[in-house]
Amino acid sequence: MNRNLAEYIRRYIEIDDDELAIFNSFLKERDVDKKQYLFRSASVCKSKYFILEGCFRLFYVDKKGNEQIMHFGIENWWITDYDSLLNKTPSELNLQAIEGSKVLELNGIDLEDLYDQLPKAERLFRIIAQKTYIASQRRLQFMFSLSGEEMYEKFRDFNPAFTQRVPQYMLASYLGFTPEFLSKIRGKKS
Amino acid sequence: MNRNLAEYIRRYIEIDDDELAIFNSFLKERDVDKKQYLFRSASVCKSKYFILEGCFRLFYVDKKGNEQIMHFGIENWWITDYDSLLNKTPSELNLQAIEGSKVLELNGIDLEDLYDQLPKAERLFRIIAQKTYIASQRRLQFMFSLSGEEMYEKFRDFNPAFTQRVPQYMLASYLGFTPEFLSKIRGKKS
Repeated sequence: MNRNLAEYIRRYIEIDDDELAIFNSFLKERDVDKKQYLFRSASVCKSKYFILEGCFRLFYVDKKGNEQIMHFGIENWWITDYDSLLNKTPSELNLQAIEGSKVLELNGIDLEDLYDQLPKAERLFRIIAQKTYIASQRRLQFMFSLSGEEMYEKFRDFNPAFTQRVPQYMLASYLGFTPEFLSKIRGKKS
Repeated sequence: MNRNLAEYIRRYIEIDDDELAIFNSFLKERDVDKKQYLFRSASVCKSKYFILEGCFRLFYVDKKGNEQIMHFGIENWWITDYDSLLNKTPSELNLQAIEGSKVLELNGIDLEDLYDQLPKAERLFRIIAQKTYIASQRRLQFMFSLSGEEMYEKFRDFNPAFTQRVPQYMLASYLGFTPEFLSKIRGKKS
């Protein structure tokens, strides 16, 4: 099994090498070109992806045609549209590589087999889902309580390398700013 | 076991009566007075609660002293501060009954025992965490894409009975409005 994923899993659950081998047998490594989509809106999202290398954005296009980024994903993160994957409904989101990337794909149908063969995968994904939810609540809390400038500072402090890595207009979209507003804040800070 | 909870659990996982009895042995029924707190900020949240009757709000107090509601909870919902419960850190949130209520309490320490004795509880709470996360992402998406008026309409359409049940100033807080703004929108609609 990929060493990064093995380490990642062992941060959350106790698992031996044989069990890791079972987990591994459900994964498929895929190279993803820069700008390539793993799924697009209107299709049902069929997999979750563990990012080995690279960077992704999960976004939708609003009524006015603007791209709104819901999430970024980098190395050692799982990324998917949980709504579409769990409820088997067409996604409103698009998952696109920002850089040339490499992922491990876990198909949603296989996922049920994985849970059968390795029940502690339920524990792993229970903990990950709870942590993902916690992060989402923190983001909501920031949106309620912080000024734009404070939100940008929080983001930069939590993700210093990442802030340099994604184009400024994407960061602005994630934070709910115009690119001009972000540029103004960044100008003040430098 | 309480019939509502049994029905609720069976919506998500297959579970027989003996297993339900194990689950039940970890729960403690509690009556909660109107305005009573189940936990307050600065303390570590130690339990998750299944609401049998009544209505709760989960809120924090911001730097300016304003109460910001993160969540409501009504019958057949689990409510807790996942961050504090999972990471054993002091909560920033307060969980208060809006009405006289009745809950089933599942203590965080017992929860680990429950997972040991009944591994499929991992599956239940994995699915619930994913669904809770999906709801939270939808709310974020509404905040990005909808006007105040559209957000209120969505909320009312998804929760018609509930919109009548909570005080207007709490609904305004949840939606991120001033009470005056909500009152103006409601006035237009009636």
